[in-house]
Amino acid sequence: MNKSPRNGSSIEQVAGNGLLDRRALLGRGVMLAGAIGTGTAGSLTGAAAEPLAEAPWSLEPGAVTPPYQRASRFEDNVVRTVDNPKNEPRGSRARTPHHLLDGIITPNGLHFTIMHAGIPDIDPAQHKLVIHGMVKQPLVFTLEALARYPKVSRIGFVECGGNSAPLFSNEPIQASIQALHGLASCSEWSGVLLSTLLDEAGVDPKAKWLIAEGADSPHLSRSVPLAKAMDDAMIAMYQNGERIQPGQGYPMRLWLPGYEGNMNVKYLRRIQVTDRPGMTYFESRIYTDVLPNGKASRFYFLQEVKSFISAPSPGLTLKEPGIHEITGVAYAGTGRIAKVLVSADGGRSWAQAALQEPRLPKAFTRFRMPWRWDGGPAILQSRAFDEAGNMQPTREQFVALRGETSKPPSVLGFPGHHYNAITSWAVDAKGEIKHVYA
Amino acid sequence: MNKSPRNGSSIEQVAGNGLLDRRALLGRGVMLAGAIGTGTAGSLTGAAAEPLAEAPWSLEPGAVTPPYQRASRFEDNVVRTVDNPKNEPRGSRARTPHHLLDGIITPNGLHFTIMHAGIPDIDPAQHKLVIHGMVKQPLVFTLEALARYPKVSRIGFVECGGNSAPLFSNEPIQASIQALHGLASCSEWSGVLLSTLLDEAGVDPKAKWLIAEGADSPHLSRSVPLAKAMDDAMIAMYQNGERIQPGQGYPMRLWLPGYEGNMNVKYLRRIQVTDRPGMTYFESRIYTDVLPNGKASRFYFLQEVKSFISAPSPGLTLKEPGIHEITGVAYAGTGRIAKVLVSADGGRSWAQAALQEPRLPKAFTRFRMPWRWDGGPAILQSRAFDEAGNMQPTREQFVALRGETSKPPSVLGFPGHHYNAITSWAVDAKGEIKHVYA
Repeated sequence: MNKSPRNGSSIEQVAGNGLLDRRALLGRGVMLAGAIGTGTAGSLTGAAAEPLAEAPWSLEPGAVTPPYQRASRFEDNVVRTVDNPKNEPRGSRARTPHHLLDGIITPNGLHFTIMHAGIPDIDPAQHKLVIHGMVKQPLVFTLEALARYPKVSRIGFVECGGNSAPLFSNEPIQASIQALHGLASCSEWSGVLLSTLLDEAGVDPKAKWLIAEGADSPHLSRSVPLAKAMDDAMIAMYQNGERIQPGQGYPMRLWLPGYEGNMNVKYLRRIQVTDRPGMTYFESRIYTDVLPNGKASRFYFLQEVKSFISAPSPGLTLKEPGIHEITGVAYAGTGRIAKVLVSADGGRSWAQAALQEPRLPKAFTRFRMPWRWDGGPAILQSRAFDEAGNMQPTREQFVALRGETSKPPSVLGFPGHHYNAITSWAVDAKGEIKHVYA
Repeated sequence: MNKSPRNGSSIEQVAGNGLLDRRALLGRGVMLAGAIGTGTAGSLTGAAAEPLAEAPWSLEPGAVTPPYQRASRFEDNVVRTVDNPKNEPRGSRARTPHHLLDGIITPNGLHFTIMHAGIPDIDPAQHKLVIHGMVKQPLVFTLEALARYPKVSRIGFVECGGNSAPLFSNEPIQASIQALHGLASCSEWSGVLLSTLLDEAGVDPKAKWLIAEGADSPHLSRSVPLAKAMDDAMIAMYQNGERIQPGQGYPMRLWLPGYEGNMNVKYLRRIQVTDRPGMTYFESRIYTDVLPNGKASRFYFLQEVKSFISAPSPGLTLKEPGIHEITGVAYAGTGRIAKVLVSADGGRSWAQAALQEPRLPKAFTRFRMPWRWDGGPAILQSRAFDEAGNMQPTREQFVALRGETSKPPSVLGFPGHHYNAITSWAVDAKGEIKHVYA
């Protein structure tokens, strides 16, 4: 192992295969990673140093400042992968490129979406939301009326119940994190709490459910327990400050923090308060999983505690040994993330990652861990814990309960929902990264 | 005054002219605002109610799901106002439309920017950052090298020192909040703490300042106290999850949380560590204000405690009496917002607004206050307090110290910087809103 201070090898490990103490790393003046010493003359007098080479963009005026800024052309690869680019008459999925992002906010343009019949072009002035059923007074709300109600803002994730379904396969599928975990994203949502509107309508004490329905042509409908509706459900009208995106339900969607994505009904036009669930297509056919013991899992809505390492991850390559940052996101539909452990030796030893503040309930929490890669093989894993004490399962534990499949699972087929087990990335001596089961 | 429960008039006021207690308002089943009672048949059996009218978008397939989603065409008006659309050889400003946004995150496309010679088209693979001057070892960093360092993420605002300069005018200028306060925005920034890099370079104990320089053609340079650099300064590479925008300094900018915008040098290419400030153009000519007492204010960097009401605000109209939400943002370069008071009677009485969590230091905090507008005149104001006990000044207090001008001030002229006093919106009987001094 290279003992030069330049690769941080003098710093004590906190777990096997090079995991380092972030506090020990900082503030010690150690040569960390990748910086190049230079002969550029320093000057104690504040006078100019040896001139820097001037690139073309340093020598001529730049481009116009537009009304709505777009990303640099050098970022044209930072896009969602879409699986129905010709808009054929079937569903469309667009996945978030986690390996190219940092922080906890997913920019609106890159938020994942699943559409069942394309994105409707809804005129917000024409759109209405009806609340009816077991209420004292059925009500109709325009967007303008909703704007007058007390609103709330909250940062939180939405995750498709089918996210990570490829990991049900009994062989690790070689794909990017975008393909494996790209159906989860996190935004700041603003809108009116559903409880505010239900209070106004006056809910019948015998009511227990509501059925939410969208205005796009599939009229996607899902049943929601009234307790969740009265807790933290939101009629979301803004996403990261601006009106929600066409692919997110413009002009309004139901947001059920921590519940499976499909229930967060987009283009929300109707809420029927009922005493029983609607047994709609997506809950009785799609989100009912048959378990290995022969029983069916139905009306299980929580997206449980989960994490994945976004960098390094497949497609990103480590170019040289030395210090690298391991980072990713953790989240739990149950609440706040309490800690995230990281391993570089396939789970034999673990160290606690730094968690980025704010740690918000039912939101992405960014974790970070410095790692000294010695150029040899490594298996990187992360394991999240929520504040209620729930722990992300190993894949072995998860498969024992939920089963696996011998062919790549479809998110529409058995047993493809609510995968939340540990993901493992193997680093080889070339610095290339593969998806493995470990 | 209308005593029907439908406009909330049965709810006790917490301050004059209709400010209401949010907690009293919620959970009481009162008819709040704008909802329309409907004859749509409820059903206790979960069977379908009277069918809703079907709009065209409910009857046909929608549009393709794109790799990068854009806002709905119905939101084409939600853009920045730009003052140099032909990119003439002068500065360009683009202002954030606060009156059309909610929450605390400004979407990247709508973040304000000021460019001094257009937006450069920088190839990130060619861009380098040099740290030199009073350091043990001058260093050069590529973007790839920086990616290996321990990173941090933080939500915070950037505000131009010249934001709100029109309020130095001795007559209230009639303009939207976008024109008056649009040079402030808030994002999640991710990157490497500057202290991490300065530690690695090894700062001379006699050093007290650094001079930061950009790679665009003006090579904008600003001096930064070393204490700030070692505290919370960041080399920001990501903004709301994705790479920072071309107008924000792609591929990297200096971010000095809470300090005037101009110092947050974009396209950062050089940091020279020194024992004295550089006395650069923007600090000796532009951001040196001559005060009424004849003294010059120089090297005063803090953006002090401030707030403004984004809705209602000029250009938005109240269409009918009854309950409305008053909302806006508060922020302080000194730290966290402790409270925001709102008045509907021009400052004669005040009530405490609800503050949206998370309340983060040096970040926007969204405040909200329910208001029952009786259809008569009102003057809306907000006043923010930070945790250190600093209070947003009245305009009168502010002008006594900082002066005012008899013509619309230019942000490049006396005395146009660091305006943070209270803003007042007058509502008339038609529900129209004007900027006033009160």
